[in-house]
Amino acid sequence: MTQDLMLRMELVAFMDAYAALLDNDRIEEWPAMFTEDCLYEIISRENEEQGLPAPVMYCDNGRMLRDRVVALRNANIYEKPQYRHFISGLTFRMRADGALDAQSSYLVVNTSQAGTTTVYQAGCYKDVVVRVDGQFKFQSRRCIYDTSRVQTLLAYPI
Amino acid sequence: MTQDLMLRMELVAFMDAYAALLDNDRIEEWPAMFTEDCLYEIISRENEEQGLPAPVMYCDNGRMLRDRVVALRNANIYEKPQYRHFISGLTFRMRADGALDAQSSYLVVNTSQAGTTTVYQAGCYKDVVVRVDGQFKFQSRRCIYDTSRVQTLLAYPI
Amino acid sequence: MTQDLMLRMELVAFMDAYAALLDNDRIEEWPAMFTEDCLYEIISRENEEQGLPAPVMYCDNGRMLRDRVVALRNANIYEKPQYRHFISGLTFRMRADGALDAQSSYLVVNTSQAGTTTVYQAGCYKDVVVRVDGQFKFQSRRCIYDTSRVQTLLAYPI
Repeated sequence: MTQDLMLRMELVAFMDAYAALLDNDRIEEWPAMFTEDCLYEIISRENEEQGLPAPVMYCDNGRMLRDRVVALRNANIYEKPQYRHFISGLTFRMRADGALDAQSSYLVVNTSQAGTTTVYQAGCYKDVVVRVDGQFKFQSRRCIYDTSRVQTLLAYPI
Repeated sequence: MTQDLMLRMELVAFMDAYAALLDNDRIEEWPAMFTEDCLYEIISRENEEQGLPAPVMYCDNGRMLRDRVVALRNANIYEKPQYRHFISGLTFRMRADGALDAQSSYLVVNTSQAGTTTVYQAGCYKDVVVRVDGQFKFQSRRCIYDTSRVQTLLAYPI
Repeated sequence: MTQDLMLRMELVAFMDAYAALLDNDRIEEWPAMFTEDCLYEIISRENEEQGLPAPVMYCDNGRMLRDRVVALRNANIYEKPQYRHFISGLTFRMRADGALDAQSSYLVVNTSQAGTTTVYQAGCYKDVVVRVDGQFKFQSRRCIYDTSRVQTLLAYPI
């Protein structure tokens, strides 16, 4: 088997683990999927294309990711979403330093507390994935959303 | 390649085969994806979390699965759905006895006879998969749905 | 690893590359995913099942594919869509001549220029995939859609 296909399988397993923890109420495990010195942001495609840095969520280190989790668990001002993430169109290439530049499409559906499931957000992940002690970690995960008419406040990670 | 990645690929192929037969009007092949002594049920997340055993569909052996298929083919009281199943976030672990505990998210969209496609149901599969004569089978597939506002009667398997 | 699982991985990578170029505004690369002597069509499930050859898009060689791309780039009469393709339920078998007959379900969501994301179309891909100079190409890709209430003109490839 080529190294490309092998890496692809590992990437898919890594991204499935990411989706699984967000969709099954295990956000405490979310920060550990990133390197300590990381970037996580959610930004609109419009802003991304125009080079306007105005993300709706922005974390540039592990502490900020962990703070976000604590805030979400303790602040009951948001209705807790029930997301389901679907990923497709994964492509990637390896940089000279061994890091992987990866890109994929995502669809998030959400079920409200009233029990209705709707399309919540579609967009594109742009990632940099590195290996730390044999495990993949996101050095950077940028969520670039198409859906500008977001129905509810975007407080939870995508 | 690690055994984990190898098993993952086999599981994905197995789950794709399951989705393909439901989405392409081949439900006669559905019972053969289970062991004879099996569990198949569809239950709401609310009931699952509260430990209330009130599934909307329940089959605990192969005969019940086959009966369900015969009923669906012969009783024309239901509009036959045109489902498309999408799976994500697959995680699994092997038990001491070699069976696989697997979990994944699903999204089912349906196209009505009027030609409109809508989100039908999102939820989570919790599975026990075993190998019988070299082939994977569901010893148990539990469909735990998020979507409590189900638009039409849930008569077809998910 | 069995040859079947190996081919499956290559097919998934190929289909992900297809989805990625359509979803990220790189349609110039779309024709190169087909053999020069090819078939690409989009047809309703109803017409497919009744054997009525009335596709809404039909190209039977590479030149027609390239013409389609030029037309889409130059004719500004259509609102450019922002599709996201999701694929599931992949099954395939190898013919005696080595070509692969493959089938999968698709879901395309679209985000309008107003920023709303909706289910655009669900359906089924029926493909013939061949290897040319070591690379997979579609000899035939037929998009058989369930969704007959198509909201906007179907001008872009699926």
